[in-house]
Amino acid sequence: MSQLVTHAFDDATALSFDGRQFHGQVKAEYYNMVGPFGGITAATMLKAAMSHPERLGQPLALTVNFAAPAKVAPFVIEAVPVRTNRSTQHFTLTMMQDGEVVTTATAVFGIRRESWSHTEAVMPDVPPPADVPRFVAPAPLPWMQWYHVRLIRGSAFDEVQDATTYQWMRDDPPRPLDHAALAALCDTFVPRVYVKLKRPVPIGTVTFTVYFLADPETIFRQGTNELLGVARATGFSHGYFDQIGEVWSQDGDLLATTTQLVYMKAPVSGSS
Amino acid sequence: MSQLVTHAFDDATALSFDGRQFHGQVKAEYYNMVGPFGGITAATMLKAAMSHPERLGQPLALTVNFAAPAKVAPFVIEAVPVRTNRSTQHFTLTMMQDGEVVTTATAVFGIRRESWSHTEAVMPDVPPPADVPRFVAPAPLPWMQWYHVRLIRGSAFDEVQDATTYQWMRDDPPRPLDHAALAALCDTFVPRVYVKLKRPVPIGTVTFTVYFLADPETIFRQGTNELLGVARATGFSHGYFDQIGEVWSQDGDLLATTTQLVYMKAPVSGSS
Repeated sequence: MSQLVTHAFDDATALSFDGRQFHGQVKAEYYNMVGPFGGITAATMLKAAMSHPERLGQPLALTVNFAAPAKVAPFVIEAVPVRTNRSTQHFTLTMMQDGEVVTTATAVFGIRRESWSHTEAVMPDVPPPADVPRFVAPAPLPWMQWYHVRLIRGSAFDEVQDATTYQWMRDDPPRPLDHAALAALCDTFVPRVYVKLKRPVPIGTVTFTVYFLADPETIFRQGTNELLGVARATGFSHGYFDQIGEVWSQDGDLLATTTQLVYMKAPVSGSS
Repeated sequence: MSQLVTHAFDDATALSFDGRQFHGQVKAEYYNMVGPFGGITAATMLKAAMSHPERLGQPLALTVNFAAPAKVAPFVIEAVPVRTNRSTQHFTLTMMQDGEVVTTATAVFGIRRESWSHTEAVMPDVPPPADVPRFVAPAPLPWMQWYHVRLIRGSAFDEVQDATTYQWMRDDPPRPLDHAALAALCDTFVPRVYVKLKRPVPIGTVTFTVYFLADPETIFRQGTNELLGVARATGFSHGYFDQIGEVWSQDGDLLATTTQLVYMKAPVSGSS
Protein backbone atom coordinates (compact mmCIF):
# COMPACT_ATOMS: atom_id res chain seq x y z
CA MET A 1 0.00 0.00 0.00
CA SER A 2 2.93 2.32 0.73
CA GLN A 3 5.24 3.67 -1.95
CA LEU A 4 9.02 4.05 -1.73
CA VAL A 5 9.38 7.81 -1.98
CA THR A 6 13.09 8.04 -1.16
CA HIS A 7 15.58 5.52 -2.54
CA ALA A 8 17.57 3.76 0.17
CA PHE A 9 20.74 5.22 -1.38
CA ASP A 10 19.47 8.76 -0.94
CA ASP A 11 18.31 7.97 2.56
CA ALA A 12 21.72 6.52 3.50
CA THR A 13 23.59 9.53 2.09
CA ALA A 14 21.15 12.18 3.37
CA LEU A 15 22.85 15.17 5.00
CA SER A 16 21.73 18.33 6.74
CA PHE A 17 23.92 21.45 6.85
CA ASP A 18 24.00 23.72 9.88
CA GLY A 19 25.97 26.42 8.07
CA ARG A 20 29.25 24.97 9.30
CA GLN A 21 29.11 21.15 9.24
CA PHE A 22 27.09 18.39 7.59
CA HIS A 23 25.17 15.93 9.74
CA GLY A 24 24.11 12.42 8.78
CA GLN A 25 23.68 8.92 10.08
CA VAL A 26 25.38 5.60 9.22
CA LYS A 27 22.54 3.24 8.28
CA ALA A 28 22.43 -0.45 9.18
CA GLU A 29 20.86 -1.06 5.75
CA TYR A 30 24.22 -0.32 4.03
CA TYR A 31 26.48 -1.99 6.56
CA ASN A 32 29.25 -4.34 5.50
CA MET A 33 31.19 -6.70 7.77
CA VAL A 34 32.78 -4.38 10.35
CA GLY A 35 31.84 -0.96 8.98
CA PRO A 36 29.59 0.65 6.40
CA PHE A 37 29.94 -0.36 2.73
CA GLY A 38 32.86 1.77 1.54
CA GLY A 39 30.92 2.88 -1.51
CA ILE A 40 28.18 4.47 0.58
CA THR A 41 30.78 6.28 2.70
CA ALA A 42 32.49 7.54 -0.46
CA ALA A 43 29.15 8.68 -1.87
CA THR A 44 28.33 10.45 1.39
CA MET A 45 31.65 12.32 1.41
CA LEU A 46 31.12 13.35 -2.22
CA LYS A 47 27.57 14.50 -1.45
CA ALA A 48 28.85 16.68 1.38
CA ALA A 49 31.18 18.49 -1.03
CA MET A 50 28.44 18.65 -3.69
CA SER A 51 26.01 20.13 -1.15
CA HIS A 52 28.41 22.83 -0.04
CA PRO A 53 26.95 26.28 -0.79
CA GLU A 54 30.20 27.37 -2.51
CA ARG A 55 30.54 24.26 -4.67
CA LEU A 56 31.66 24.91 -8.25
CA GLY A 57 31.06 22.59 -11.20
CA GLN A 58 30.87 18.80 -11.11
CA PRO A 59 33.16 16.15 -9.58
CA LEU A 60 36.42 15.30 -11.36
CA ALA A 61 38.12 13.14 -8.74
CA LEU A 62 37.46 11.73 -5.29
CA THR A 63 39.84 10.02 -2.85
CA VAL A 64 38.43 8.54 0.35
CA ASN A 65 40.56 7.13 3.18
CA PHE A 66 38.93 4.71 5.59
CA ALA A 67 40.64 5.59 8.87
CA ALA A 68 38.41 3.54 11.16
CA PRO A 69 35.13 1.62 10.84
CA ALA A 70 32.16 3.94 11.40
CA LYS A 71 29.41 2.72 13.72
CA VAL A 72 25.69 2.68 12.97
CA ALA A 73 25.26 6.09 14.58
CA PRO A 74 25.22 9.80 13.70
CA PHE A 75 28.27 11.45 12.11
CA VAL A 76 29.49 14.93 11.30
CA ILE A 77 31.34 15.91 8.09
CA GLU A 78 33.53 18.96 7.71
CA ALA A 79 33.79 19.88 4.01
CA VAL A 80 36.18 22.74 3.32
CA PRO A 81 36.62 24.24 -0.16
CA VAL A 82 40.29 24.97 0.47
CA ARG A 83 40.97 26.46 -2.95
CA THR A 84 38.69 27.71 -5.72
CA ASN A 85 40.17 28.61 -9.10
CA ARG A 86 38.48 29.75 -12.27
CA SER A 87 37.42 26.28 -13.36
CA THR A 88 38.50 23.87 -10.57
CA GLN A 89 37.82 23.63 -6.87
CA HIS A 90 39.55 21.52 -4.20
CA PHE A 91 37.81 20.16 -1.10
CA THR A 92 39.26 18.55 2.01
CA LEU A 93 36.73 16.48 3.97
CA THR A 94 36.66 14.80 7.37
CA MET A 95 33.96 12.53 8.82
CA MET A 96 33.82 12.21 12.60
CA GLN A 97 31.90 10.15 15.12
CA ASP A 98 32.07 11.04 18.82
CA GLY A 99 34.81 13.56 18.01
CA GLU A 100 37.08 10.94 16.41
CA VAL A 101 38.02 10.91 12.72
CA VAL A 102 36.64 7.84 10.92
CA THR A 103 37.07 8.91 7.27
CA THR A 104 39.04 11.54 5.37
CA ALA A 105 38.70 12.57 1.74
CA THR A 106 39.75 15.01 -0.91
CA ALA A 107 37.56 15.93 -3.87
CA VAL A 108 38.26 17.98 -6.96
CA PHE A 109 35.44 19.68 -8.85
CA GLY A 110 35.61 21.35 -12.20
CA ILE A 111 33.85 22.71 -15.22
CA ARG A 112 34.19 20.40 -18.23
CA ARG A 113 34.51 21.74 -21.74
CA GLU A 114 34.50 20.07 -25.14
CA SER A 115 37.94 18.86 -26.18
CA TRP A 116 39.73 16.35 -28.32
CA SER A 117 38.69 13.00 -26.97
CA HIS A 118 39.81 9.41 -27.29
CA THR A 119 39.12 6.25 -25.36
CA GLU A 120 42.37 4.34 -25.05
CA ALA A 121 41.19 1.39 -22.94
CA VAL A 122 39.20 -1.29 -24.74
CA MET A 123 35.78 -2.26 -23.41
CA PRO A 124 35.74 -6.03 -22.90
CA ASP A 125 33.57 -8.03 -25.26
CA VAL A 126 30.92 -9.47 -22.94
CA PRO A 127 27.42 -10.90 -23.29
CA PRO A 128 24.55 -8.40 -22.91
CA PRO A 129 22.92 -8.07 -19.46
CA ALA A 130 19.89 -10.14 -20.41
CA ASP A 131 22.15 -13.14 -21.12
CA VAL A 132 23.82 -13.14 -17.68
CA PRO A 133 22.00 -14.35 -14.54
CA ARG A 134 21.82 -12.16 -11.46
CA PHE A 135 24.52 -12.99 -8.91
CA VAL A 136 23.16 -14.03 -5.54
CA ALA A 137 25.74 -14.10 -2.75
CA PRO A 138 25.49 -17.17 -0.53
CA ALA A 139 25.56 -15.06 2.65
CA PRO A 140 24.75 -11.52 1.52
CA LEU A 141 25.85 -8.55 3.62
CA PRO A 142 23.26 -5.82 4.24
CA TRP A 143 24.57 -3.40 1.56
CA MET A 144 24.37 -6.03 -1.19
CA GLN A 145 20.55 -5.92 -1.21
CA TRP A 146 20.83 -2.48 -2.85
CA TYR A 147 22.81 -3.66 -5.87
CA HIS A 148 21.79 -5.73 -8.86
CA VAL A 149 24.93 -7.48 -10.13
CA ARG A 150 25.29 -9.91 -13.02
CA LEU A 151 28.67 -11.55 -12.57
CA ILE A 152 30.12 -12.31 -15.98
CA ARG A 153 33.47 -13.66 -14.73
CA GLY A 154 35.73 -13.49 -11.70
CA SER A 155 34.24 -14.43 -8.34
CA ALA A 156 35.16 -16.67 -5.40
CA PHE A 157 32.91 -19.34 -6.92
CA ASP A 158 34.03 -19.74 -10.53
CA GLU A 159 37.00 -21.32 -12.31
CA VAL A 160 38.66 -18.04 -13.25
CA GLN A 161 42.32 -18.21 -12.19
CA ASP A 162 43.28 -14.55 -12.58
CA ALA A 163 41.97 -11.69 -10.43
CA THR A 164 39.87 -9.98 -13.10
CA THR A 165 36.11 -9.48 -12.71
CA TYR A 166 33.57 -8.34 -15.29
CA GLN A 167 30.06 -7.56 -14.05
CA TRP A 168 26.90 -5.75 -15.10
CA MET A 169 25.74 -3.60 -12.21
CA ARG A 170 23.19 -1.00 -11.12
CA ASP A 171 21.41 0.22 -8.01
CA ASP A 172 18.48 -1.93 -6.93
CA PRO A 173 15.77 -0.77 -7.06
CA PRO A 174 16.91 1.17 -10.14
CA ARG A 175 17.96 4.78 -9.50
CA PRO A 176 19.07 7.36 -12.11
CA LEU A 177 22.87 7.55 -12.22
CA ASP A 178 24.71 10.50 -10.73
CA HIS A 179 28.29 11.00 -9.49
CA ALA A 180 27.56 9.76 -5.97
CA ALA A 181 25.92 6.56 -7.22
CA LEU A 182 28.75 6.00 -9.72
CA ALA A 183 31.36 6.40 -6.97
CA ALA A 184 29.54 3.80 -4.86
CA LEU A 185 29.24 1.39 -7.82
CA CYS A 186 33.06 1.57 -8.15
CA ASP A 187 33.28 -0.22 -4.78
CA THR A 188 30.82 -3.09 -5.45
CA PHE A 189 33.40 -5.57 -6.74
CA VAL A 190 34.17 -8.67 -4.71
CA PRO A 191 37.62 -8.24 -3.11
CA ARG A 192 40.34 -9.30 -5.56
CA VAL A 193 41.88 -11.63 -2.99
CA TYR A 194 38.64 -13.69 -2.83
CA VAL A 195 38.72 -14.11 -6.59
CA LYS A 196 42.33 -15.24 -6.48
CA LEU A 197 42.20 -17.50 -3.42
CA LYS A 198 38.60 -18.68 -4.07
CA ARG A 199 37.70 -18.06 -0.44
CA PRO A 200 37.07 -15.07 1.81
CA VAL A 201 39.81 -13.74 4.11
CA PRO A 202 39.59 -10.69 6.42
CA ILE A 203 40.02 -7.53 4.33
CA GLY A 204 39.47 -3.80 4.63
CA THR A 205 39.82 -1.01 2.08
CA VAL A 206 42.36 1.57 3.22
CA THR A 207 42.04 4.16 0.45
CA PHE A 208 39.76 4.46 -2.58
CA THR A 209 39.92 6.78 -5.59
CA VAL A 210 37.48 7.52 -8.42
CA TYR A 211 38.22 9.60 -11.51
CA PHE A 212 35.11 10.75 -13.37
CA LEU A 213 36.43 10.51 -16.92
CA ALA A 214 33.13 11.18 -18.69
CA ASP A 215 31.48 14.58 -18.66
CA PRO A 216 28.39 15.00 -16.44
CA GLU A 217 25.92 14.78 -19.33
CA THR A 218 27.22 11.35 -20.33
CA ILE A 219 26.95 10.17 -16.72
CA PHE A 220 23.40 11.50 -16.23
CA ARG A 221 22.29 10.11 -19.60
CA GLN A 222 22.79 6.54 -18.32
CA GLY A 223 19.63 6.81 -16.24
CA THR A 224 18.96 3.38 -14.73
CA ASN A 225 20.93 1.41 -17.34
CA GLU A 226 23.09 -1.45 -16.16
CA LEU A 227 26.79 -0.55 -16.40
CA LEU A 228 29.79 -2.75 -17.09
CA GLY A 229 32.29 -2.94 -14.25
CA VAL A 230 35.83 -4.22 -14.81
CA ALA A 231 38.17 -4.84 -11.89
CA ARG A 232 41.75 -6.12 -11.90
CA ALA A 233 44.55 -6.48 -9.38
CA THR A 234 48.16 -5.50 -9.95
CA GLY A 235 49.75 -7.13 -6.93
CA PHE A 236 49.30 -8.72 -3.50
CA SER A 237 52.14 -8.36 -0.99
CA HIS A 238 52.88 -8.00 2.72
CA GLY A 239 49.27 -7.67 3.82
CA TYR A 240 47.94 -5.41 1.07
CA PHE A 241 46.69 -5.60 -2.49
CA ASP A 242 45.36 -3.14 -5.03
CA GLN A 243 42.35 -3.01 -7.33
CA ILE A 244 42.15 -1.07 -10.58
CA GLY A 245 38.76 -0.77 -12.25
CA GLU A 246 36.74 0.79 -15.02
CA VAL A 247 33.03 1.52 -15.41
CA TRP A 248 31.61 1.50 -18.94
CA SER A 249 28.20 2.40 -20.37
CA GLN A 250 26.52 -0.20 -22.54
CA ASP A 251 27.31 1.83 -25.64
CA GLY A 252 31.01 2.08 -24.87
CA ASP A 253 31.45 5.34 -22.97
CA LEU A 254 34.15 5.13 -20.30
CA LEU A 255 32.43 6.71 -17.29
CA ALA A 256 35.00 6.32 -14.53
CA THR A 257 38.20 4.63 -13.44
CA THR A 258 38.78 3.56 -9.87
CA THR A 259 41.62 2.29 -7.71
CA GLN A 260 41.84 1.07 -4.15
CA LEU A 261 44.42 -0.29 -1.74
CA VAL A 262 43.11 -3.02 0.51
CA TYR A 263 44.40 -4.62 3.70
CA MET A 264 44.25 -8.43 3.71
CA LYS A 265 44.91 -11.02 6.38
CA ALA A 266 46.21 -13.85 4.21
CA PRO A 267 48.91 -15.96 5.85
CA VAL A 268 51.83 -17.21 3.77
CA SER A 269 50.46 -20.75 3.97
CA GLY A 270 47.16 -19.59 2.40
CA SER A 271 48.07 -20.45 -1.19
CA SER A 272 50.79 -19.70 -3.69
CA MET B 1 87.05 21.33 -5.93
CA SER B 2 83.77 21.21 -4.01
CA GLN B 3 81.81 18.03 -3.41
CA LEU B 4 78.04 17.58 -3.64
CA VAL B 5 77.24 16.67 -0.06
CA THR B 6 73.45 16.90 -0.30
CA HIS B 7 71.58 15.49 -3.31
CA ALA B 8 69.45 18.09 -5.08
CA PHE B 9 66.40 15.92 -4.33
CA ASP B 10 67.06 16.11 -0.59
CA ASP B 11 67.74 19.80 -0.83
CA ALA B 12 64.46 20.43 -2.70
CA THR B 13 62.44 18.40 -0.18
CA ALA B 14 64.24 19.68 2.94
CA LEU B 15 61.90 20.67 5.77
CA SER B 16 62.25 22.14 9.22
CA PHE B 17 59.65 21.55 11.94
CA ASP B 18 58.78 24.23 14.48
CA GLY B 19 56.78 21.82 16.63
CA ARG B 20 53.57 22.75 14.81
CA GLN B 21 54.25 23.19 11.07
CA PHE B 22 56.87 22.21 8.52
CA HIS B 23 58.76 24.90 6.61
CA GLY B 24 60.45 24.56 3.24
CA GLN B 25 61.16 26.31 0.01
CA VAL B 26 60.11 25.65 -3.61
CA LYS B 27 63.35 25.43 -5.58
CA ALA B 28 63.87 26.78 -9.09
CA GLU B 29 66.03 23.71 -9.78
CA TYR B 30 62.93 21.44 -9.77
CA TYR B 31 60.55 23.82 -11.53
CA ASN B 32 58.34 22.68 -14.37
CA MET B 33 56.41 24.94 -16.78
CA VAL B 34 54.12 26.94 -14.48
CA GLY B 35 54.78 25.32 -11.11
CA PRO B 36 57.16 22.89 -9.44
CA PHE B 37 57.55 19.37 -10.86
CA GLY B 38 54.57 17.51 -9.36
CA GLY B 39 56.80 14.65 -8.26
CA ILE B 40 58.92 16.89 -6.04
CA THR B 41 55.79 18.38 -4.46
CA ALA B 42 54.43 14.88 -3.82
CA ALA B 43 57.76 13.82 -2.30
CA THR B 44 57.78 16.92 -0.11
CA MET B 45 54.27 16.24 1.20
CA LEU B 46 55.23 12.64 1.92
CA LYS B 47 58.41 13.74 3.71
CA ALA B 48 56.39 16.08 5.93
CA ALA B 49 54.23 13.15 7.09
CA MET B 50 57.31 10.91 7.42
CA SER B 51 59.07 13.55 9.50
CA HIS B 52 56.15 13.97 11.89
CA PRO B 53 57.22 13.00 15.43
CA GLU B 54 54.17 10.73 15.82
CA ARG B 55 54.60 8.93 12.49
CA LEU B 56 53.99 5.18 12.59
CA GLY B 57 55.40 2.66 10.09
CA GLN B 58 56.11 3.24 6.42
CA PRO B 59 54.01 4.75 3.61
CA LEU B 60 51.24 2.65 2.07
CA ALA B 61 49.47 5.25 -0.06
CA LEU B 62 49.75 8.91 -0.99
CA THR B 63 47.29 11.17 -2.80
CA VAL B 64 48.36 14.70 -3.71
CA ASN B 65 46.03 17.35 -5.14
CA PHE B 66 47.57 20.26 -7.03
CA ALA B 67 45.27 23.13 -6.10
CA ALA B 68 47.37 25.95 -7.53
CA PRO B 69 50.91 26.36 -8.92
CA ALA B 70 53.37 27.04 -6.11
CA LYS B 71 55.86 29.85 -6.63
CA VAL B 72 59.63 29.66 -6.16
CA ALA B 73 59.30 30.87 -2.56
CA PRO B 74 58.95 29.54 1.00
CA PHE B 75 55.99 27.35 1.96
CA VAL B 76 54.43 25.94 5.09
CA ILE B 77 52.99 22.40 5.45
CA GLU B 78 50.49 21.33 8.06
CA ALA B 79 50.68 17.56 8.55
CA VAL B 80 48.05 16.18 10.90
CA PRO B 81 47.97 12.51 11.96
CA VAL B 82 44.17 12.52 12.14
CA ARG B 83 43.84 8.88 13.17
CA THR B 84 46.34 6.32 14.47
CA ASN B 85 45.30 2.69 14.78
CA ARG B 86 47.29 -0.34 15.86
CA SER B 87 48.99 -0.82 12.50
CA THR B 88 47.85 2.06 10.25
CA GLN B 89 47.94 5.83 10.48
CA HIS B 90 46.13 8.46 8.40
CA PHE B 91 47.53 11.93 7.65
CA THR B 92 45.84 14.98 6.17
CA LEU B 93 48.30 17.52 4.73
CA THR B 94 48.06 21.08 3.44
CA MET B 95 50.79 23.16 1.78
CA MET B 96 50.38 26.93 1.87
CA GLN B 97 52.15 29.94 0.41
CA ASP B 98 51.26 33.43 1.64
CA GLY B 99 48.35 31.95 3.60
CA GLU B 100 46.77 30.37 0.49
CA VAL B 101 46.43 26.61 -0.06
CA VAL B 102 48.52 25.43 -3.03
CA THR B 103 48.53 21.65 -2.42
CA THR B 104 46.54 19.16 -0.34
CA ALA B 105 47.30 15.53 0.35
CA THR B 106 46.35 12.48 2.32
CA ALA B 107 48.83 9.78 3.27
CA VAL B 108 48.36 6.38 4.85
CA PHE B 109 51.16 4.71 6.78
CA GLY B 110 51.29 1.19 8.07
CA ILE B 111 53.30 -1.69 9.38
CA ARG B 112 53.78 -4.42 6.77
CA ARG B 113 53.84 -8.07 7.67
CA GLU B 114 54.64 -11.20 5.69
CA SER B 115 51.60 -12.55 3.84
CA TRP B 116 50.57 -14.60 0.88
CA SER B 117 51.85 -12.69 -2.12
CA HIS B 118 51.31 -12.75 -5.85
CA THR B 119 52.14 -10.35 -8.66
CA GLU B 120 49.17 -10.27 -11.02
CA ALA B 121 50.42 -7.68 -13.51
CA VAL B 122 53.03 -8.83 -16.00
CA MET B 123 56.29 -6.92 -16.30
CA PRO B 124 56.80 -5.95 -19.94
CA ASP B 125 59.57 -7.71 -21.81
CA VAL B 126 62.00 -4.87 -22.56
CA PRO B 127 65.68 -4.54 -23.43
CA PRO B 128 68.06 -4.06 -20.48
CA PRO B 129 69.04 -0.49 -19.55
CA ALA B 130 72.46 -0.73 -21.18
CA ASP B 131 70.78 -1.38 -24.57
CA VAL B 132 68.62 1.77 -24.49
CA PRO B 133 70.07 5.25 -25.07
CA ARG B 134 69.44 8.03 -22.59
CA PHE B 135 66.51 10.26 -23.56
CA VAL B 136 67.44 13.89 -24.01
CA ALA B 137 64.48 16.27 -24.21
CA PRO B 138 64.83 18.88 -26.98
CA ALA B 139 63.92 21.72 -24.60
CA PRO B 140 64.40 20.30 -21.10
CA LEU B 141 62.57 21.84 -18.16
CA PRO B 142 64.63 22.47 -15.01
CA TRP B 143 63.43 19.35 -13.10
CA MET B 144 64.42 17.01 -15.93
CA GLN B 145 68.13 17.52 -15.23
CA TRP B 146 67.64 15.44 -12.05
CA TYR B 147 66.37 12.34 -13.82
CA HIS B 148 68.14 9.80 -15.99
CA VAL B 149 65.53 8.32 -18.34
CA ARG B 150 65.98 5.73 -21.09
CA LEU B 151 62.83 5.89 -23.19
CA ILE B 152 62.08 2.42 -24.50
CA ARG B 153 58.79 3.33 -26.25
CA GLY B 154 56.07 5.98 -26.14
CA SER B 155 57.13 9.61 -26.48
CA ALA B 156 56.09 12.65 -28.51
CA PHE B 157 58.90 11.79 -30.95
CA ASP B 158 58.44 8.15 -31.89
CA GLU B 159 56.05 6.18 -34.07
CA VAL B 160 54.10 4.60 -31.21
CA GLN B 161 50.38 5.16 -31.85
CA ASP B 162 48.98 4.18 -28.45
CA ALA B 163 49.51 6.12 -25.23
CA THR B 164 51.77 3.59 -23.50
CA THR B 165 55.29 4.45 -22.36
CA TYR B 166 58.03 2.13 -21.09
CA GLN B 167 61.14 3.75 -19.63
CA TRP B 168 64.14 2.93 -17.46
CA MET B 169 64.52 5.67 -14.87
CA ARG B 170 66.46 6.79 -11.79
CA ASP B 171 67.50 9.94 -10.01
CA ASP B 172 70.51 11.71 -11.54
CA PRO B 173 73.02 11.81 -9.97
CA PRO B 174 72.12 8.38 -8.57
CA ARG B 175 70.48 8.41 -5.13
CA PRO B 176 69.45 5.37 -3.03
CA LEU B 177 65.72 4.70 -3.46
CA ASP B 178 63.26 5.53 -0.71
CA HIS B 179 59.50 6.17 -0.66
CA ALA B 180 59.83 9.88 -1.41
CA ALA B 181 62.08 9.30 -4.43
CA LEU B 182 59.80 6.51 -5.67
CA ALA B 183 56.76 8.79 -5.42
CA ALA B 184 58.57 11.43 -7.46
CA LEU B 185 59.67 8.88 -10.08
CA CYS B 186 55.98 8.00 -10.56
CA ASP B 187 55.48 11.49 -12.01
CA THR B 188 58.39 11.53 -14.49
CA PHE B 189 56.44 10.20 -17.48
CA VAL B 190 55.80 12.47 -20.44
CA PRO B 191 52.11 13.51 -20.41
CA ARG B 192 49.99 10.83 -22.12
CA VAL B 193 48.42 13.44 -24.41
CA TYR B 194 51.84 14.32 -25.89
CA VAL B 195 52.44 10.65 -26.70
CA LYS B 196 49.04 10.40 -28.37
CA LEU B 197 49.00 13.72 -30.27
CA LYS B 198 52.80 13.72 -30.91
CA ARG B 199 53.00 17.34 -29.80
CA PRO B 200 52.83 19.26 -26.53
CA VAL B 201 49.60 20.97 -25.43
CA PRO B 202 49.02 22.88 -22.17
CA ILE B 203 48.47 20.37 -19.34
CA GLY B 204 48.42 20.29 -15.56
CA THR B 205 48.10 17.38 -13.14
CA VAL B 206 45.06 17.81 -10.90
CA THR B 207 45.45 14.82 -8.59
CA PHE B 208 48.12 12.14 -8.22
CA THR B 209 48.11 8.87 -6.27
CA VAL B 210 50.84 6.36 -5.44
CA TYR B 211 50.32 2.95 -3.82
CA PHE B 212 53.50 1.42 -2.39
CA LEU B 213 52.81 -2.22 -3.20
CA ALA B 214 56.21 -3.58 -2.18
CA ASP B 215 57.34 -3.73 1.42
CA PRO B 216 59.95 -1.15 2.55
CA GLU B 217 62.85 -3.62 2.44
CA THR B 218 62.22 -4.36 -1.25
CA ILE B 219 62.08 -0.62 -1.99
CA PHE B 220 65.28 0.20 -0.07
CA ARG B 221 67.09 -2.79 -1.61
CA GLN B 222 66.92 -1.16 -5.06
CA GLY B 223 69.63 1.30 -4.08
CA THR B 224 70.53 3.31 -7.18
CA ASN B 225 69.31 0.71 -9.70
CA GLU B 226 67.42 1.90 -12.74
CA LEU B 227 63.72 1.03 -12.47
CA LEU B 228 61.21 0.19 -15.19
CA GLY B 229 58.35 2.67 -15.47
CA VAL B 230 55.17 1.77 -17.35
CA ALA B 231 52.49 4.39 -18.05
CA ARG B 232 49.18 4.02 -19.87
CA ALA B 233 46.09 6.14 -20.43
CA THR B 234 42.52 4.94 -20.10
CA GLY B 235 40.71 7.89 -21.65
CA PHE B 236 40.84 11.52 -22.79
CA SER B 237 37.61 13.53 -22.63
CA HIS B 238 36.23 17.02 -22.02
CA GLY B 239 39.53 18.58 -21.01
CA TYR B 240 40.95 15.78 -18.85
CA PHE B 241 42.78 12.49 -19.20
CA ASP B 242 44.14 9.88 -16.83
CA GLN B 243 47.42 8.04 -16.45
CA ILE B 244 47.87 4.63 -14.84
CA GLY B 245 51.38 3.43 -14.18
CA GLU B 246 53.58 0.81 -12.59
CA VAL B 247 57.17 0.86 -11.33
CA TRP B 248 59.12 -2.40 -11.47
CA SER B 249 62.54 -3.43 -10.19
CA GLN B 250 64.91 -4.99 -12.71
CA ASP B 251 64.37 -8.40 -11.14
CA GLY B 252 60.59 -8.20 -11.42
CA ASP B 253 59.37 -6.80 -8.10
CA LEU B 254 56.35 -4.54 -8.45
CA LEU B 255 57.32 -1.54 -6.33
CA ALA B 256 54.42 0.85 -6.84
CA THR B 257 51.36 1.68 -8.90
CA THR B 258 50.37 5.24 -9.68
CA THR B 259 47.43 7.11 -11.17
CA GLN B 260 46.83 10.71 -12.05
CA LEU B 261 44.11 12.88 -13.54
CA VAL B 262 45.42 15.63 -15.79
CA TYR B 263 43.88 18.78 -17.25
CA MET B 264 44.57 19.29 -20.96
CA LYS B 265 43.86 22.13 -23.34
CA ALA B 266 43.35 20.17 -26.54
CA PRO B 267 40.74 21.64 -28.89
CA VAL B 268 38.40 19.32 -30.78
CA SER B 269 40.24 20.12 -34.01
CA GLY B 270 43.52 18.88 -32.50
CA SER B 271 43.31 15.33 -33.81
CA SER B 272 41.04 12.33 -33.63
